[in-house]
Amino acid sequence: MTKLQLLSSLGLGRNCFIRISWGGFRTISSSTAALTAKMSTECYTFGPYKIDPKEVFYSSPLSYAMVNLRPVVPGHVLVCPRREVKRFVDLTVDETSDLWLTAQRVGGGLECHHKASSLTFTIQDGPQSGQTVPHVHIHILPRREGDFERNDEIYDAIDVKEKEMQETLDLDKERKNRSPEEMSREADEYRSLFL
Amino acid sequence: MTKLQLLSSLGLGRNCFIRISWGGFRTISSSTAALTAKMSTECYTFGPYKIDPKEVFYSSPLSYAMVNLRPVVPGHVLVCPRREVKRFVDLTVDETSDLWLTAQRVGGGLECHHKASSLTFTIQDGPQSGQTVPHVHIHILPRREGDFERNDEIYDAIDVKEKEMQETLDLDKERKNRSPEEMSREADEYRSLFL
Repeated sequence: MTKLQLLSSLGLGRNCFIRISWGGFRTISSSTAALTAKMSTECYTFGPYKIDPKEVFYSSPLSYAMVNLRPVVPGHVLVCPRREVKRFVDLTVDETSDLWLTAQRVGGGLECHHKASSLTFTIQDGPQSGQTVPHVHIHILPRREGDFERNDEIYDAIDVKEKEMQETLDLDKERKNRSPEEMSREADEYRSLFL
Repeated sequence: MTKLQLLSSLGLGRNCFIRISWGGFRTISSSTAALTAKMSTECYTFGPYKIDPKEVFYSSPLSYAMVNLRPVVPGHVLVCPRREVKRFVDLTVDETSDLWLTAQRVGGGLECHHKASSLTFTIQDGPQSGQTVPHVHIHILPRREGDFERNDEIYDAIDVKEKEMQETLDLDKERKNRSPEEMSREADEYRSLFL
């Protein structure tokens, strides 16, 4: 059994194969275009909410990445398991691996795209840690020198946005800061990074 | 090839087998005692620093978990890859999977042990995100209702402790808050959770 077959059997095939074989974010084949088209018609949920596929810019067998309603910094995105799972401990081995390999790839791509020099990865796992939508999600934030006066201020901002995100999704209020069109455009831009 | 063999070939065998077969944190065999003894004599590094094995309470083929010099909350620990790698994107597929499966298991065990109800997982990946020791490490913090007045205050505390940790490791200053004996006792306590 090859390493690719091994990884495929764990649901990690495509992304891992790209990393192992080429180690970067290069265009590899026309089949990726078909995958992107497929992705745009798939169904993504986030807790009890349905996510517009236009806001999803990357997907793997068990995970997906979407742009944010109200990003804290440019490139602030969320990576989620496809299955609705409330707590990190309840993800399967395959889901856990796939989720973080997705986050690794997405983070690397967005850091480069946004000319940042660091990344913050955070899971608020459970209500007492600030989680508002009961579906595991990784916050990824490209970071630059001086983006926040004190580094930890970024977490205040995440908390505020997390609450706003829930309110917006929950109550279907009018979005103040970002239109669906704007989010879709950003997702298109990011999607092209991972072709 | 069995699933265990598959996972073993990826360096995930022992921990994953426990999760897959029993789904919990139960004592499975006397071989674990031998593993613990082996762990205590192994060499662990954290960036340029050597870590006392007595402060390491869990290890897997590619990762280890250690108690913290100055924890922000009870059970605040660090999970690191064994190999010295500065940035998350530079971990291999196997290391990434192993690191987060370790974090998942350790987090679940400590949340239960500390009677907490949530967890915060954070990687400060690169200096602009607050990383001070150039070796990938996941902060895991068991969380309870009201442990911080505002949820995000915990990140101010992580930042302060991260800087203190570097200063202590770097300059070999006298430790103010925790003695090696205290840390060793805590590690012994946690080690028993994962036998």
